[in-house]
Amino acid sequence: MNFKEITISQKYIHKGKIINLRVDEVELPSGRKSSREIVEHNGGVGIVAINEKKEIILVKQFRKPFEEVLIEIPAGKLEKGEEPIKCAVRELEEETGKKALSLKLMNILYTSPGFSNEKLYIYLCTEMEDGKVNPDEDENLEIMYVKYEDALNMIYNGEIKDAKTISGILAAKKFI
Amino acid sequence: MNFKEITISQKYIHKGKIINLRVDEVELPSGRKSSREIVEHNGGVGIVAINEKKEIILVKQFRKPFEEVLIEIPAGKLEKGEEPIKCAVRELEEETGKKALSLKLMNILYTSPGFSNEKLYIYLCTEMEDGKVNPDEDENLEIMYVKYEDALNMIYNGEIKDAKTISGILAAKKFI
Repeated sequence: MNFKEITISQKYIHKGKIINLRVDEVELPSGRKSSREIVEHNGGVGIVAINEKKEIILVKQFRKPFEEVLIEIPAGKLEKGEEPIKCAVRELEEETGKKALSLKLMNILYTSPGFSNEKLYIYLCTEMEDGKVNPDEDENLEIMYVKYEDALNMIYNGEIKDAKTISGILAAKKFI
Repeated sequence: MNFKEITISQKYIHKGKIINLRVDEVELPSGRKSSREIVEHNGGVGIVAINEKKEIILVKQFRKPFEEVLIEIPAGKLEKGEEPIKCAVRELEEETGKKALSLKLMNILYTSPGFSNEKLYIYLCTEMEDGKVNPDEDENLEIMYVKYEDALNMIYNGEIKDAKTISGILAAKKFI
């Protein structure tokens, strides 16, 4: 089956701090024309960090698009050209004060493939040592240590809603 | 801890077919000012449909933001004011030809809470009957029936990358 949508033209609507927005005019396999709104994002990392007590480190933070405080795994955006694994080490330490001693890439997650190219590298970290907390200026974070089994319950009772956090916690089950 | 970011002003950059883009100027709890780029989306549904042979129904489709064919659970956008469960019944039948006889809401997933308010209602469907395929004009889909255990492997070997699909398949394990 031919799936390819050929780009006829591309127009940037917005080039911003975190995202760009462009609209592509495309030709569908049927020959019909359509348009696609595409949010460009540089991608990021998320870290499922589980300590020797089987506690997972979660962060609470305000998310403006929902006007809600969400519970998420530590995560952050890739800087231009940054290797995902280096970003994961940096973000975990900045947000939680824990320095990863080893990281395992579990998934590369496409968060909203209908309209965005955001790609998140999801790591599992089960070996860490104490480092130094240093959150970004724009971030207000609160750290939580939650038993892995309790975190599973928080997925099923709706307390955890963030996609990378749900898929990361569930995917880790195989390895711990 | 005070997390709230107070909106000082809101400006729409784009009002589109699937998404809007606005930029909010905010005051952080520290008193510092910042801006937030927010992609508004009407939300949608995803359906983890598993038949009596323990096969999950997946759809292959081209996703322009990645220029890739992705393997995903059947899914679709909410129409204005539409109840999520009605949307789930409609989308499952349109995309796969299967009519859900019962649906269980597993999660409400926030796909990209850093920059978008997209919210997906993820249902489990284990009872279905034959209906009528009727995909959207803009969609080119190919249906796959995959053994549940094989779908799990496809998550861990990277063949499945879509966040709603990974979290939906993994979350279903508890119920099947």
